[in-house]
Amino acid sequence: MSGNTFGKIFKVTTFGESHGKSLGAVIDGFPAGLDIDIEKIQKDLDRRKPSQKTSDGSINKSVTQRNESDEIQILSGIFEGKSTGCPIGFIIPNSDAHSNDYSDIADKFRPGHADYSFYEKYSIRDYRGGGRSSGRETACRVAAGGFAKILLEKMFPQFEITASTIAVAGIKAETFDKNEIEKNSLRCADKIAAKKMEERIEEIRSKGDSCGAIVECKIKGIKAGLGEPVFDKLDALLAQAMLSIGAIKGIEFGSGFESAEMLGSEWNDQMQKNDKDGSFFKTNHAGGILGGISNGNEIIFRVVVKPVPSISKLQNTIDKSGNECTMQIKGRHDICLAPRIVPVIEAMASIVLADLALQNLASKID
Amino acid sequence: MSGNTFGKIFKVTTFGESHGKSLGAVIDGFPAGLDIDIEKIQKDLDRRKPSQKTSDGSINKSVTQRNESDEIQILSGIFEGKSTGCPIGFIIPNSDAHSNDYSDIADKFRPGHADYSFYEKYSIRDYRGGGRSSGRETACRVAAGGFAKILLEKMFPQFEITASTIAVAGIKAETFDKNEIEKNSLRCADKIAAKKMEERIEEIRSKGDSCGAIVECKIKGIKAGLGEPVFDKLDALLAQAMLSIGAIKGIEFGSGFESAEMLGSEWNDQMQKNDKDGSFFKTNHAGGILGGISNGNEIIFRVVVKPVPSISKLQNTIDKSGNECTMQIKGRHDICLAPRIVPVIEAMASIVLADLALQNLASKID
Amino acid sequence: MSGNTFGKIFKVTTFGESHGKSLGAVIDGFPAGLDIDIEKIQKDLDRRKPSQKTSDGSINKSVTQRNESDEIQILSGIFEGKSTGCPIGFIIPNSDAHSNDYSDIADKFRPGHADYSFYEKYSIRDYRGGGRSSGRETACRVAAGGFAKILLEKMFPQFEITASTIAVAGIKAETFDKNEIEKNSLRCADKIAAKKMEERIEEIRSKGDSCGAIVECKIKGIKAGLGEPVFDKLDALLAQAMLSIGAIKGIEFGSGFESAEMLGSEWNDQMQKNDKDGSFFKTNHAGGILGGISNGNEIIFRVVVKPVPSISKLQNTIDKSGNECTMQIKGRHDICLAPRIVPVIEAMASIVLADLALQNLASKID
Amino acid sequence: MSGNTFGKIFKVTTFGESHGKSLGAVIDGFPAGLDIDIEKIQKDLDRRKPSQKTSDGSINKSVTQRNESDEIQILSGIFEGKSTGCPIGFIIPNSDAHSNDYSDIADKFRPGHADYSFYEKYSIRDYRGGGRSSGRETACRVAAGGFAKILLEKMFPQFEITASTIAVAGIKAETFDKNEIEKNSLRCADKIAAKKMEERIEEIRSKGDSCGAIVECKIKGIKAGLGEPVFDKLDALLAQAMLSIGAIKGIEFGSGFESAEMLGSEWNDQMQKNDKDGSFFKTNHAGGILGGISNGNEIIFRVVVKPVPSISKLQNTIDKSGNECTMQIKGRHDICLAPRIVPVIEAMASIVLADLALQNLASKID
Repeated sequence: MSGNTFGKIFKVTTFGESHGKSLGAVIDGFPAGLDIDIEKIQKDLDRRKPSQKTSDGSINKSVTQRNESDEIQILSGIFEGKSTGCPIGFIIPNSDAHSNDYSDIADKFRPGHADYSFYEKYSIRDYRGGGRSSGRETACRVAAGGFAKILLEKMFPQFEITASTIAVAGIKAETFDKNEIEKNSLRCADKIAAKKMEERIEEIRSKGDSCGAIVECKIKGIKAGLGEPVFDKLDALLAQAMLSIGAIKGIEFGSGFESAEMLGSEWNDQMQKNDKDGSFFKTNHAGGILGGISNGNEIIFRVVVKPVPSISKLQNTIDKSGNECTMQIKGRHDICLAPRIVPVIEAMASIVLADLALQNLASKID
Repeated sequence: MSGNTFGKIFKVTTFGESHGKSLGAVIDGFPAGLDIDIEKIQKDLDRRKPSQKTSDGSINKSVTQRNESDEIQILSGIFEGKSTGCPIGFIIPNSDAHSNDYSDIADKFRPGHADYSFYEKYSIRDYRGGGRSSGRETACRVAAGGFAKILLEKMFPQFEITASTIAVAGIKAETFDKNEIEKNSLRCADKIAAKKMEERIEEIRSKGDSCGAIVECKIKGIKAGLGEPVFDKLDALLAQAMLSIGAIKGIEFGSGFESAEMLGSEWNDQMQKNDKDGSFFKTNHAGGILGGISNGNEIIFRVVVKPVPSISKLQNTIDKSGNECTMQIKGRHDICLAPRIVPVIEAMASIVLADLALQNLASKID
Repeated sequence: MSGNTFGKIFKVTTFGESHGKSLGAVIDGFPAGLDIDIEKIQKDLDRRKPSQKTSDGSINKSVTQRNESDEIQILSGIFEGKSTGCPIGFIIPNSDAHSNDYSDIADKFRPGHADYSFYEKYSIRDYRGGGRSSGRETACRVAAGGFAKILLEKMFPQFEITASTIAVAGIKAETFDKNEIEKNSLRCADKIAAKKMEERIEEIRSKGDSCGAIVECKIKGIKAGLGEPVFDKLDALLAQAMLSIGAIKGIEFGSGFESAEMLGSEWNDQMQKNDKDGSFFKTNHAGGILGGISNGNEIIFRVVVKPVPSISKLQNTIDKSGNECTMQIKGRHDICLAPRIVPVIEAMASIVLADLALQNLASKID
Repeated sequence: MSGNTFGKIFKVTTFGESHGKSLGAVIDGFPAGLDIDIEKIQKDLDRRKPSQKTSDGSINKSVTQRNESDEIQILSGIFEGKSTGCPIGFIIPNSDAHSNDYSDIADKFRPGHADYSFYEKYSIRDYRGGGRSSGRETACRVAAGGFAKILLEKMFPQFEITASTIAVAGIKAETFDKNEIEKNSLRCADKIAAKKMEERIEEIRSKGDSCGAIVECKIKGIKAGLGEPVFDKLDALLAQAMLSIGAIKGIEFGSGFESAEMLGSEWNDQMQKNDKDGSFFKTNHAGGILGGISNGNEIIFRVVVKPVPSISKLQNTIDKSGNECTMQIKGRHDICLAPRIVPVIEAMASIVLADLALQNLASKID
């Protein structure tokens, strides 16, 4: 398994299983001389944590009740509050791992999970909560993304990234108020839709089921010129980054799949003199990316999040010997992953942008 | 611009501009000892070529009328009909490049094209037909994909890959007959829909406009186990590969964006004893990939193709000095890219799979 | 600083400074299913540790007296004693770091050290014992090399690697008895020469000086075929691996620099029927590598180790403001690095071989 | 064989066999906006070509008499005399390939050559002059190095690189006059030694033998700060680059192997106020590199070149079936590779420096 590194210059390597001793990561290529505010990074980690509150202040039952502090411990690369140019190593210890929850399913492949495909690949089964394929792996992405954000804020003072849930189990957000996002358990920017989503999720939870969602991400303040033709296009790398998140099954930029029903005369974003936002475009069907390179317009993409595969309903499956059987999954699981994936999406998008921003330093020599 | 290499072991590096002397590529990591049938590769290249026929035998007006032979010339890596293990270098010369068609737009940024973002990145403008950002660049991908297919057919005798157009300008395919695909100008597997699509395209063409489309790709015969957690998941790399194709703006796997409206109990593919096709799954909402690793089920994904940006309608834009102006694009252009992108999609998907198949040789040591 | 990863499939990423919280590393690409004997890896780490005994049982004064347990803590990638295919993360905490020893030299550049070049590169100075440029960084290489050895022993049952000191301050080893190596403080395979070397080193130590050395490495049991033409030749990667060790300033294979005085008829290793050792060669001027690929003969190379730069003699230097000054280095330092570099050399060579052995799985498809 | 790419940002991928249709390469990551003087690059290629004159104007019999024009043909990446940021593709066609010279040795392994190790690796034999393992492969390195020099001259106006032969078959250069280098057939900077070397080589040639040599390379004008700790140290990458050249079997930096006999007080380069050359060091035992990073001093290294393996004397070997036999090599071969390797060394060193110079742009953010 040699796919645990992401990026070329800003290069993140992660390790760790859901029920092992510790998660961790190394960020290589982080430039020297930047002030590192660890508390800010910890805040993003806290956003990804389970056990959060709903919009009315009650405990959020749509996420797993596993209790992890998710505290980042920096081991290297920072000296007297500044990055030194050396690799930044950190760990996020596991503390609340209940491996016993999984012992009775050690020989069965959970439907919708990676159990079977991992077993076919490695002929070994770390049955404790998905091992490396667990969503818990994303904690390191969030921390690494926190470092990427620090770099982007330094290089692009107007940089701002905002992901939010725009659809859950058929209920869609219709308005966008950024201030609402952190006020409800779905991280939805539409207060009214959020309320409906919470109700819908509670209903699904009570039936032992789970549901899917769509998350949208908007990025402001990135200058034109990021992205490396032809294979490392900005949208290509964002797509890799997003689809590398376990539960995400699709991505679209700008007008996305609707583009299939549009004419060129509708789709092409006409250009005009620079407006106040720094963009030269009248519309944004391209989602801020043309030819795989940022064009100065807002970068917009949406991803679809599959329903949480761990449900308490009885399911049909097979065991390691190939015999058919049924299984019921216990343990503490999320109902809808969207709210916890929001910070992961922001993190991965920031890592892509940070890497391309550093790569772009070598695109021309004056 | 250091993004012109794709893959880790099966590694493709391409070069060449639409109106330069020649396109070309190097495939490094192709194993020794395989029989190479160049004519088969040339056939894929011919499928990508412009100037093809419609379903009624008339000239296909939906694609550019530029006349390129797109003939591959092998320069190295093959000796006495077999791969030697050495890098395979090849070129595809440009012969019908009309740079003059572009001289009058040298100072204006074409809407929907990469002109502006490239200029911001490199401060230089190769105005001859898009230069490196031209779709012509994909010819090398198709040829490299031909080599990937040879490898996959050797490693997985049941391997079969089929992309086809499933929607054009709002018209959707409703049936799937593989034999129809190469019989119409859209590469649509639904004969009746294809006819409607052709009529719709002719209508759009007559108005000087263009349109978008959706292409679906199905892959059979790939064994479970391909894909490298966590960042080089099979779906993540397919997403990068697809989004790296200029006109593609979105991708979804299996149930894709519909997953957002599904419950876990609906989405999870229940397992059963191995059926005749080698799959252990009753359904395929996952699109053949779980945890980023192939699960033995058919691999299915869909991509959206944006409308061709080169339209003959008058458009608003700016020039290199930032002044607003209008422009009308001349030259020979496609109306809908879907049919010509079909072989490109098959090629890029094959490259991803070939690379992951070779990587997978090191996943376990018995 | 994005050079902290080594290898392509067997991929090692290290982090950590000499006086930071912890060293650590991630090994990505270690195949699944191998039995991991951590104690064996710890033994190699112990060989690299300072504070060892001399041949007469007294404390070895030629190495630094810093007291580090160098205990490896595995964080991931191993489950029930076996590798899982997931990245192996580990840390080696620092426990005996005396940063105060360095505070008075924080503004001066130590001659022979990396202080000045690091400062020019990063404009920041981690003055605590060299930070990332400290030899302490090699502990992670030794641990990672331990994993590489486990893999090589599985793939090549005859595999055996032995490095030993063959020259110190002008005194040369003249015999080779493998059993002597771990019995003296220099790791020299010649008992008599070792005694002389120890005496010479004691003399140099008493004068506040240090000295250089030559170490030879012999590798048996590697089959022909490892090494990737043209840039990743086996000797090219071994050279990178060795020169990446701070104190090493040169490398030669087989007859090495003596080749300059040889004729082709002398140098060419004539071939014959396979002898008992599995080699088809009568001699070994090539050092077991031809065309950058192992030829089945014993792999032999020698490296030169520069004198330890930290000496207690007064030296001329400049400070961060560019003013000339003198300095005297305190702290606990080695006199000769050879004995402690021996396990590092074995480790790095093993990492190169493990990576190339895995890469070679894809060199041909039958 | 996936080792045909060198570099991370300035990335060179080469292909081609000695007797195939064409050699070629792709340089990815060359920045946009530089003036490209192809004739200058062609001049370096001409220096590597065989069939050159000796110091007295007669034909140089120490090099192969194969007659290749080695003309570079640029296919992409340059527009109106400037680099565009797109990958630079070029080919160097083979025109004087006499494959027949090799047909009688198709089944025997030539001693000192890569025939046997390649065959063990790939189970296929391209017997035409070594195929990919031929020295002819280095033509592409020289051309790519020409591009690297253009970049270095732009980034470091004082940049100057000079390699020269300092020892041949036991005869050593004792003086250094840069102007002499291109005046004799050995590329030796000592006029008198060069004459002796030429005589010695003529003697060796008359006996059907060949000989080894040492080449030294000096690089001026590189600022402090290039090199990426810890594995991509400047000396580590130069070592990989040099050892990747077929005939080179060793490298040493600065005082090199002599360091083994030196004391720390002798070896450490004491610092002083900046002299006229931009260096802060009184001596240069480190060869301009400390901690793997350039220190502003002249970069100096030496490599050993093995005797040409193709000799006309009768040799003992085995054939593909493992039977012992003798063989005599015909064809046109060099006696001593040093003079033709000089431009290859300069080229590879320039590629390393160009890549590290671009990487260094991201080492700190102000």
